[in-house]
Formats: sequence, structure tokens, C-alpha cells
Amino acid sequence: MKIKLVLVQLFLGLCFSTFAQQNQAPKSENKANVAEKGLIKVSVLYPYAEGKTFDMDYYEKSHMPYVAGLLGSNLVRYTIEKGISSGIPNSPLPFMAIGSFYVKSLSDYQAAITPNREAIRADFPKYTNISPTILVSEVVK
Amino acid sequence: MKIKLVLVQLFLGLCFSTFAQQNQAPKSENKANVAEKGLIKVSVLYPYAEGKTFDMDYYEKSHMPYVAGLLGSNLVRYTIEKGISSGIPNSPLPFMAIGSFYVKSLSDYQAAITPNREAIRADFPKYTNISPTILVSEVVK
Repeated sequence: MKIKLVLVQLFLGLCFSTFAQQNQAPKSENKANVAEKGLIKVSVLYPYAEGKTFDMDYYEKSHMPYVAGLLGSNLVRYTIEKGISSGIPNSPLPFMAIGSFYVKSLSDYQAAITPNREAIRADFPKYTNISPTILVSEVVK
Repeated sequence: MKIKLVLVQLFLGLCFSTFAQQNQAPKSENKANVAEKGLIKVSVLYPYAEGKTFDMDYYEKSHMPYVAGLLGSNLVRYTIEKGISSGIPNSPLPFMAIGSFYVKSLSDYQAAITPNREAIRADFPKYTNISPTILVSEVVK
């Protein structure tokens, strides 16, 4: 009788935990999508021009992981995109690449980057001869 | 005795399903993060200059949902960001806003946009006097 009771309790407990997990799943997915709203995005844009070069392999495997590593828990995620075209026929490519850091706090980002600015710049010639444009923006959606 | 056996079976079954769910959870989260890699991103960048205006409210609530609605199932998601600063002291804001569409196919994007190009352009004066820059890129990470 005691064993039955224990099993019934276990059964109900597991039913509840399974139910709770199933209910959580969509919520956490929603959170993942909504989580970016309100974040600060620091984008580093590399404008294209004749004679400009960009080594995406070094950028992806070395430069971006290095800078991302400086940002600690302030960094939510970072993205890399490779420019393909201007979207308008006979119009030059606007940017060869864009790297973006999604962070919680701009002041924490600046506090982490400022003491390393020279080291970050010293890494530039290893993958590009472009002087990048920087945009600080807020994620609206 | 039969009841005990049924309960033991239910217990084991639930243990397994709970275990299976727990094992699935991180995988589906990874999928959500990795899912963007390889997608085409069409970014519409609105460069800042003196005298330029941008109505973010209209852009977010009307223009972007309208264009997104034209893209159908080719659209994975779209984002909106609002330019804050250049990230460099005494340097002008590079862009007032950026709207981006993550799509599976560039040719499907073009097929959806081309017949509506005039209608899309006719909506521009309702929120901005900026002539946007368009970048088609590939999501590397």
C-alpha cells in the first residue's frame, strides 16, 4: 500500500513537472525573441571602396572572438554579416562587412573597450585596410 | 499487483519523456541561435544629415509591417534599430535608423518587392525625407 502511494505521488509529481515544462517552452522561446528589444547594439561597418580588402576568415575566427571576450557578461550576443550587393543594379556595394555587439549597457561596453582600444586597432591591419564606421543604436524591434 | 505494474510503467515512461524533453531543450535553443546563419539580410539604412527627419513611430507601426507583409513565408524575421550616436566623440551620427529583413531567398525577396516598389517608395515621405542606402548581406554568424 505504501509503495502504491509513493508511486502515485511520483506519478502526479512527474505529470506536474512535465506539464510545467511544456508550459515553459513557448514562454522561453518568446523571451529569446523579445530579449533583444531595448538592448544597445554597437555596429562596426566596413565601407567598400576600390582597393579595399577584408579577410572574413580572420575576422570571424580571431578578431571578433577577441573583442567579444573583452565584454564579459555585458555581451548578449554578437553577429557578423558579409556584404553581397547594394540591392540596386549598377550601384556599388555599400559595406564589405558589419560586425555587431548586442550589449546590456553602453557605459559597461565603453569601460571594457577604452583600455583596449589601441590593441583592438593594432589588430585591424591583420584583416582589413578599411577605416570602419561605428554606429551605436537601440534595438526597437 | 497489476495496478503497481501499470504505475511502474507510467513512472518509467514519464521519467523517459522528462529526460527526452530535458535533452531536447538545449538543442532547440541552439537551433534558434544558429538558424540565422546563412540567411540573406536586406538592410535599409537611413543616413543622418542636417535637416533630415525620421518618424520612428510610423516606421515601426506602419511602414515596416506593410513591407514585411509582402514577403510571406520567405521572411524569417525583421528588426528595427534607432541610431543613438557614432560611438566616437564629436563625430556625427552615421544613421538615424536601420530596418532589416532576414529572408531565406534573395530572388523570392526581389520577386515580392519589385511589383510593389512604387507603393513602398510612395510611403517614404510619410516618415522620412532621407534617401536610404540598401545593403544585401549574408549572415556569417
